Amino acid sequence: MSLDIKIVLVEPLYQGNVGSVTRVMKNFGFSDLVLVNPCKLEGEARAMSSHALDVLESARITSSFAEAVKDASIVVGTTGITGSKINEHTRMPYYTPRELKEKLTGISGTVAILFGREDQGFNNDELRSCDMILTIPTSDVYPIMNLSHATGIVLYELSDIKTGNKPLAGGFDLRLLHEHMEELLDDIGYPVHKKNKTMLMFKRIFGRAQLIPREVQTLRGVIRRIQRKI
Amino acid sequence: MSLDIKIVLVEPLYQGNVGSVTRVMKNFGFSDLVLVNPCKLEGEARAMSSHALDVLESARITSSFAEAVKDASIVVGTTGITGSKINEHTRMPYYTPRELKEKLTGISGTVAILFGREDQGFNNDELRSCDMILTIPTSDVYPIMNLSHATGIVLYELSDIKTGNKPLAGGFDLRLLHEHMEELLDDIGYPVHKKNKTMLMFKRIFGRAQLIPREVQTLRGVIRRIQRKI
Repeated sequence: MSLDIKIVLVEPLYQGNVGSVTRVMKNFGFSDLVLVNPCKLEGEARAMSSHALDVLESARITSSFAEAVKDASIVVGTTGITGSKINEHTRMPYYTPRELKEKLTGISGTVAILFGREDQGFNNDELRSCDMILTIPTSDVYPIMNLSHATGIVLYELSDIKTGNKPLAGGFDLRLLHEHMEELLDDIGYPVHKKNKTMLMFKRIFGRAQLIPREVQTLRGVIRRIQRKI
Repeated sequence: MSLDIKIVLVEPLYQGNVGSVTRVMKNFGFSDLVLVNPCKLEGEARAMSSHALDVLESARITSSFAEAVKDASIVVGTTGITGSKINEHTRMPYYTPRELKEKLTGISGTVAILFGREDQGFNNDELRSCDMILTIPTSDVYPIMNLSHATGIVLYELSDIKTGNKPLAGGFDLRLLHEHMEELLDDIGYPVHKKNKTMLMFKRIFGRAQLIPREVQTLRGVIRRIQRKI
């Protein structure tokens, strides 16, 4: 049992940044990289990768966001823009790298940490697909960090994490729970205009709670009983 | 009273790195940069600096290492290569960024944090001029970090430091203490072949102890009394 941390870059625009990310990954002992629709990776990516070419060359390239995160138990989206309204589930609540480290201490499973495009970050649909939101505390004057700087700081924090044997529910089972929950909202005639927001809230609560497999099964059992009773 | 943290780059070779350093400085709210004999700073430095051109343009350029650190109460040298022998004062003992943050909590004064050349780091004379040695814990497989990544991680740790009103002794007074101590070693006929090593040990002890002005005066008073007695 172990904690597998994978770095996912969503549509990176500059190959030098991708190379720099692989270098800092190797500096901190990480090697699992997924690239969603990346820019071309040629000489500059290799130059910035320096002695981490093995990480660059073994990166998995996918054409869809969903494909990149499908095996992860927790999908963490990194953003520099955090919600200011507490009821805005898309970007709230958010965690600092240090808080994420505390949350992940003692567990085992696969965690995907996502970084968005250099210019626009994530779109809202992508952010809603995340179980947790991660933000590096920066100066308000200039909060936009370089992609590889942000990755470096997150990996610096996570590099000495103590893993444990508290297993996370798998990504597939969690998606079934989400779908089941959505089904229940439909069954009880939940107002359509509130449904997406409430589903996002459940997703985030489940994400932060770091459900174990047994809990997912019990939750689905409860939902099934409610459905039968209706 | 405040804690002034200045970043000193010693003979940086690549202007892109200098630009990247200014960007990450501004991301974390730092603006005081000193460059010792830097490379040319032209278009690439400005491109990587992005919205931190003010930091880049206000950097102080010096031609000597000593000039760059002369007003600092504590001079911290960052190195990826740490001493393995505990009696090797040049590179030991060393602190992680998190430990440095703890050491600096609650004090006020000027602290210079130095980063060496991209290819060779510091020479031993430069390292001996430092009061403390800082090392980012990295993988043994590939410990050499990019200059701006290293700066970013150190500044991330120091960005939320709580300063206090415990004032540090000034750099000028500390140098007088060092010289006075060396004078004393000469006065007592300390073996010449041991002198440099022992002086470095005193310097490092004083550095880690973060002497306040009154302590420096008292220490010099004690040395004076010893000298008079001899």
